[in-house]
Amino acid sequence: MDAIKAYILRHQLTTGDPLPTEAKLCADLGVSRSSVREALRKLEALDIISVRQGRGSVVGQMSMQPLVETLVLKNALDHTQGTRSLRSIVATRRFLDLGVAEEIVTNMKGTSNPHLSELVSEMTRKAQNNELFPNEDIAFHTALLRSLNNDLIEQLMQAMWLVHQAIIPQLMGKDTRGLIHTAESHQRMLDAAEKGDLQAYIEAINEHYQPLDQIIKDNENKPLS
Amino acid sequence: MDAIKAYILRHQLTTGDPLPTEAKLCADLGVSRSSVREALRKLEALDIISVRQGRGSVVGQMSMQPLVETLVLKNALDHTQGTRSLRSIVATRRFLDLGVAEEIVTNMKGTSNPHLSELVSEMTRKAQNNELFPNEDIAFHTALLRSLNNDLIEQLMQAMWLVHQAIIPQLMGKDTRGLIHTAESHQRMLDAAEKGDLQAYIEAINEHYQPLDQIIKDNENKPLS
Repeated sequence: MDAIKAYILRHQLTTGDPLPTEAKLCADLGVSRSSVREALRKLEALDIISVRQGRGSVVGQMSMQPLVETLVLKNALDHTQGTRSLRSIVATRRFLDLGVAEEIVTNMKGTSNPHLSELVSEMTRKAQNNELFPNEDIAFHTALLRSLNNDLIEQLMQAMWLVHQAIIPQLMGKDTRGLIHTAESHQRMLDAAEKGDLQAYIEAINEHYQPLDQIIKDNENKPLS
Repeated sequence: MDAIKAYILRHQLTTGDPLPTEAKLCADLGVSRSSVREALRKLEALDIISVRQGRGSVVGQMSMQPLVETLVLKNALDHTQGTRSLRSIVATRRFLDLGVAEEIVTNMKGTSNPHLSELVSEMTRKAQNNELFPNEDIAFHTALLRSLNNDLIEQLMQAMWLVHQAIIPQLMGKDTRGLIHTAESHQRMLDAAEKGDLQAYIEAINEHYQPLDQIIKDNENKPLS
């Protein structure tokens, strides 16, 4: 792996640049074909290279995605018993939402966002039918974050969301009381952001987390099924 | 990879716990031997599992090191992209600092924290000698976050810090003008938190990032030496 990384550095390759074939790497680096192949697989996992089936490898994006996923998995494993890890994740999402609030409200003030309004309508419709709406929910939050132009925050929110989404439905069971409240609080977030009202936006964020807080509280000290 | 991660989560395995044999994983997950082997190699690169030659695999440490190395490589390769990653990281740290501000100020109001005062004195002493103070800096921020009792935030801040610390000194070069300003802004954060003054705390956070913002700005579009 280090030899291939050094090769990339020495040749100043950047994202999308092709790497030599496996055969050429073996010859250049003086190692076996199976070592090269194993190293390429590992570098692929780190997003340092990207393997295009049948067409060789190129230098990858080196995104923070693997870091974020590993971190969130690690956190989820530390406390699989009970809801401690979920509480960390929900709290971290909320802290990020509060931290970016001012910039989001500044960016969205005076804008009109029919796509987000549609997502909220769809959430409301599903909530009224006692259906969950995870796709609309993540799409809504991702769209708000998009204006920050910050890849790390988006990746982080999405990784937390994945864990969250894997755990929450088990905890909720058939208790869908909070769904309508949650759908409505998205509408309040959107209205406040478009009006440029930071205080109302922050209140809507806190309201948005109330049903989740309740679910976590109800499940405290209860082992995951 | 996702199936093996889900297996680890579902069975609540932690660092050092053995994984099933490749044969058993193939059967359990319904995939081919070569797919399992490839996934294990990739998870090894991420330190999610550790392969013990001839003795099967165990759950790994999930340390951030491989991922931090990736981002450092990225920065070395493409300075513009590297600066962009660094900007994302610094912005995310700041958003988190702003997001947790209210809870930290509430927790610390009326307390006295001689250990944190000592860290700030040490930062100031080093700044006056044109020395960097990364250890004091991360110790200070970690101590503030500790009161939140949220492992994910601590791990996240530490991972961002590692990347940051690996890249910033190269960018700074011999320009140590911002050090004293940075040391002093930690004192202001501490004073504001102990007084319970949220507004002053937020101002101190923003001041704290000024020298970093300047370093990143100065390096934008500048090739790495």
